[in-house]
Amino acid sequence: MTYERDIIRHMAGYVPGEQPTDPGVIKLNTNENPWPPSPRVMEALTTIGAEALRRYPSPGAAAVMNEAAALHGVNRSQLVATNGGDELLRLAITTFVPPGQPIGIAEPSYSLYPVLAAIHDSPVHRVALDSDWAPPAEFAAEMNRAGVALTLLVNPHAPSGRLLAADVISALADALQGVLLVDEAYVDFADPDHDVTALIHRHDNLMILRTLSKGYSLAGLRLGYGIGPAGLIEPIATKTRDSYSVDAVADHLGAAALADQSSARASWAAVRDERQRLTGTLREAGFTVPDSQANFCLARVPEGAAAGAAQLYAGLKDQGILVRHFDTPRLRDHLRISVGTPAQNDALLTALLAML
Amino acid sequence: MTYERDIIRHMAGYVPGEQPTDPGVIKLNTNENPWPPSPRVMEALTTIGAEALRRYPSPGAAAVMNEAAALHGVNRSQLVATNGGDELLRLAITTFVPPGQPIGIAEPSYSLYPVLAAIHDSPVHRVALDSDWAPPAEFAAEMNRAGVALTLLVNPHAPSGRLLAADVISALADALQGVLLVDEAYVDFADPDHDVTALIHRHDNLMILRTLSKGYSLAGLRLGYGIGPAGLIEPIATKTRDSYSVDAVADHLGAAALADQSSARASWAAVRDERQRLTGTLREAGFTVPDSQANFCLARVPEGAAAGAAQLYAGLKDQGILVRHFDTPRLRDHLRISVGTPAQNDALLTALLAML
Repeated sequence: MTYERDIIRHMAGYVPGEQPTDPGVIKLNTNENPWPPSPRVMEALTTIGAEALRRYPSPGAAAVMNEAAALHGVNRSQLVATNGGDELLRLAITTFVPPGQPIGIAEPSYSLYPVLAAIHDSPVHRVALDSDWAPPAEFAAEMNRAGVALTLLVNPHAPSGRLLAADVISALADALQGVLLVDEAYVDFADPDHDVTALIHRHDNLMILRTLSKGYSLAGLRLGYGIGPAGLIEPIATKTRDSYSVDAVADHLGAAALADQSSARASWAAVRDERQRLTGTLREAGFTVPDSQANFCLARVPEGAAAGAAQLYAGLKDQGILVRHFDTPRLRDHLRISVGTPAQNDALLTALLAML
Repeated sequence: MTYERDIIRHMAGYVPGEQPTDPGVIKLNTNENPWPPSPRVMEALTTIGAEALRRYPSPGAAAVMNEAAALHGVNRSQLVATNGGDELLRLAITTFVPPGQPIGIAEPSYSLYPVLAAIHDSPVHRVALDSDWAPPAEFAAEMNRAGVALTLLVNPHAPSGRLLAADVISALADALQGVLLVDEAYVDFADPDHDVTALIHRHDNLMILRTLSKGYSLAGLRLGYGIGPAGLIEPIATKTRDSYSVDAVADHLGAAALADQSSARASWAAVRDERQRLTGTLREAGFTVPDSQANFCLARVPEGAAAGAAQLYAGLKDQGILVRHFDTPRLRDHLRISVGTPAQNDALLTALLAML
């Protein structure tokens, strides 16, 4: 006998990128920061005592949220800590979307969004991005027409790296009748002048997702947070979120990471430099690569190349280099390549260009 | 404007026990193990390197799940790791209960269950426990009559500590038409001969919840897991669970904790000894205390005492001793007291008995 709900039985699960255990693999497939976390994070790890493990953690992850409040100039009622950014995505759906009402996404986008919608029994309303990976002019109007309760928009966009300016986000928040969640998983790698957080004071329907997975090199720790008006944060923080979803280690190390902005900023600058070099070299080799403000590049394989994207992906994998290939209509002829260290990018470029 | 769903706006959130930051407080209110985690856990903490934090963790928490498989004599397809036991409770609801269909619980019970049901928009079907905190004979039949898709049963029972024997659990699983989740959060403190895990091979509707929070003194780490037939585990592990809900630190430290059974068993034996002493002393003072197989005692205040349970709770708190008082009809005249170290229990007993 089968006990799971029909919707669960019929849905497909999310397929995470490969996480090889071989440390020799050059791993440019799941957008980790190639640089290690701050030395202060590693120091903080040595100060965790048995008492911190034995007892329940701070329910609200007070240490890291206090640092986040200072960093963003918001107060604690405008912040909620989550078990990675993924938990905030799920909680936004649980909190703001009645099952059956549609969730709006740009297409293509983070492939977890439709999976979370399926679990919630909500249809996905997809609006195709323009050829330059920006939302079309009628984006918000289409979402409203479809009755979308929550729009999930990753910015910088994944997998292209395209960044929408703050005034574009503001205009979308104004135009949307539902909640707009801007998934800023990759924003730390964008132009330092870009800032959307101030908009939460002007839009009661705007929430921002942040994560320490990429910008702070802490993907292994599972720590993210939401920034938004208290009216959006409060029902998540006090009702739908698991009481202790962020553990004591993540709270403590996350606080150390946010406190050391100079170390994090240095890694972001290094990623930007390498992103520029990677983009330039790929373009010279004939790839079409949009300007990326994230820590990855989306590279369309040149027409007439000796190998297609799927073959290039497989050929790189054979040489111990992992990148990401999405077998979907619009991305099938692309590779998404995380920006690595200079040595990793050299290895990638050498192997890739030799196969063309 | 308000954006949260009506059901979220109208529900009450879960209220966790107080988590004071003052280390001087004698904390007997949220059932932590009073003994520290294994020294091998603390050693494992020192071996976590920057790479483990920088990269995504093992999606399935392979290290700790391999230890759990060996410990319980089950295979990996019969296990799923979760961010604390609470995540498994939520996932069981998400996976097995269509919204609107009832969730069955014994009354009284863990106060998170109705909160999770409310978030899911499912009614709760409550069946009152007998005067000795056991399910009545008609328990399963009542659940079936109500169309319950999932029954949540904590065993040993909270807040009484009463243990149902494995054959009782087996009979309930046979009789229930839906899924039976046995929440064994406190089972490590029970009689060592008690074992329900073998039953998963005989009942396709039986899932067991385990947590490292209590038995392994790791409440701060947020690590639990489910044991069940592969048919129940698979949709959770591959579809409804967040891909990376258990972080790299929890995976690594959890494996070290499960591997050191002798350290954990010593703490369980010490808790049993103190539980017996606490129970005996409270009974001598006139409290009614059921036999507990958990790491807490439920003590009904003697009739005619100088202070009621709420006053005793407040008086203890004034003296820096936290216990739990539930202001519900059946529990209002009780205190739930976590079993502490001998010194903590001495302090509790001295302060409590002086107020009678």
